[in-house]
Amino acid sequence: MHSRTSPVTPNPGSEFISWMANVQARVEAALVRLLPAPDIVPRRLHEAMRYAVLGGGKRVRPLLAFAAGELAGADAARVEIVACAVECIHAYSLVHDDMPCMDNDVLRRGKPTCHVEYDEATAMLVGDSLQAFAFQILSERPLAADPATQMEMLRMLAVACSSRGMAGGQAIDLDSVGKALTLPELEHMHIYKTGALIRASVALGALCGLPLSAQDFEHLERYSKFIGLAFQVVDDILDCEATTATLGKTAGKDAAANKPTYVSVLGVAKARSLAEELRVGAQDAIAALGVRARRLSELADFIVVREF
Amino acid sequence: MHSRTSPVTPNPGSEFISWMANVQARVEAALVRLLPAPDIVPRRLHEAMRYAVLGGGKRVRPLLAFAAGELAGADAARVEIVACAVECIHAYSLVHDDMPCMDNDVLRRGKPTCHVEYDEATAMLVGDSLQAFAFQILSERPLAADPATQMEMLRMLAVACSSRGMAGGQAIDLDSVGKALTLPELEHMHIYKTGALIRASVALGALCGLPLSAQDFEHLERYSKFIGLAFQVVDDILDCEATTATLGKTAGKDAAANKPTYVSVLGVAKARSLAEELRVGAQDAIAALGVRARRLSELADFIVVREF
Repeated sequence: MHSRTSPVTPNPGSEFISWMANVQARVEAALVRLLPAPDIVPRRLHEAMRYAVLGGGKRVRPLLAFAAGELAGADAARVEIVACAVECIHAYSLVHDDMPCMDNDVLRRGKPTCHVEYDEATAMLVGDSLQAFAFQILSERPLAADPATQMEMLRMLAVACSSRGMAGGQAIDLDSVGKALTLPELEHMHIYKTGALIRASVALGALCGLPLSAQDFEHLERYSKFIGLAFQVVDDILDCEATTATLGKTAGKDAAANKPTYVSVLGVAKARSLAEELRVGAQDAIAALGVRARRLSELADFIVVREF
Repeated sequence: MHSRTSPVTPNPGSEFISWMANVQARVEAALVRLLPAPDIVPRRLHEAMRYAVLGGGKRVRPLLAFAAGELAGADAARVEIVACAVECIHAYSLVHDDMPCMDNDVLRRGKPTCHVEYDEATAMLVGDSLQAFAFQILSERPLAADPATQMEMLRMLAVACSSRGMAGGQAIDLDSVGKALTLPELEHMHIYKTGALIRASVALGALCGLPLSAQDFEHLERYSKFIGLAFQVVDDILDCEATTATLGKTAGKDAAANKPTYVSVLGVAKARSLAEELRVGAQDAIAALGVRARRLSELADFIVVREF
């Protein structure tokens, strides 16, 4: 576990790296199995859905779902479905955000973006279909102790995707181009844009397992809030410092688009300190959960030290 | 009730017209209440969501949900939520379908389309948010006899919206531009594109009420299939014969876009006969349900005789 005063972010150990690789492989296999096969009509749409989801990405949201599931002693077969659902929502948001009328990007996960590889109409329908698909897989089999809890999972995901969640955050983002945001305004945007789905990933993973006490759930929610912001701060630093090849997406595009970021608002050095503060905040939030929260703790470190 | 040999489609009576007006007003009021207020951040997105949903449309899907709810003795307060959910899904599909990369239309429900009144990025997020909103309102309060039944409602809606439902139908539609489809191919497209959500509207309305027998549910499903196709056949006839002013959307656009329609495949006279056959098929499907299915029966007539 972690000490609050640790001056250096610990690097992830090989056992954790291997856990991550296992979860990533498991989620990939589940997505291959669950997504409509490319020979089912309409073939081009199903092929494009698979193109947008499979074979790429860090799978951070699935990893968080599995880590929270472990905390709650959840059946991995159930968490796997939740992991696929949040990853499909994430993939849908990338496909739509990359389109010409939004961020107009051509590279994602090391490949041409969906509308470049297919066409804009197909990309629109890929996003629309992936959103529906996430709700479908969350509702077609038992995933929680009882149907009422599962309904709560569906509600949380819907809110996370909504105009008061991820889609709303994207609207605020588009509206902020060329504006000088304050730090609280930037934080507000990211609490919605990336934070909402990250919080839902943790909560839904946990809800697959044994009921947590209200206090434990509060610890988790606090952790998620820190992690969501830390993830975005590090994303902004990487967008500014890493190369397109390493990222698998266009580097430097926020600055090019005149978008406010943690780096543009704080500078790199202060953004790094903020990421470290948020990492420590996340660790503190789950300290009381003890060893059950080990994977969540390791993920908090990983999210801050990652280089892609 | 209706006789199979009736040579003339009956016109809706004034009592039915008044029931329709009541349902439409009730759904409008519920949507006004449920949709995020326009002063909630992000304001422009919430304003645009309300623009896309409120103050227009025939509300055919809500009417079908209420008619099926009456059949099943459902609490109107529950059916109201289902009606809002299916209408928001419908509105989202119109917003996305009207965008330049899809059908590129400028007029809808007598007003400029959402991307014309706002912008393309906002229209994209309006559609994305309305889809999430539908799943949210279906999951945040009890709507069925038990949570397992409500989960089934969510599953049915998700499938109806999916790549094997409405979004898939739109993909087939885009792919059919300039092609000479056969009648079965045209039917296949519409079973997905408009039929899936119409079938879901009927099923979800019924699931708000007392459990129906498997046989009664089969009658309903058969009815929905006839109604979904009848609706589309009449839409194609109106697209060809009515004026833009009457329709509130661009008339003649299918022919202009070189899209196969029931009129282009069959001609107007045969399309009219087909609509009448489908109407009679819908009436036959629910004949065994008796007087409980009165509104469904009246709606089948209305859908075929409507002039807008």
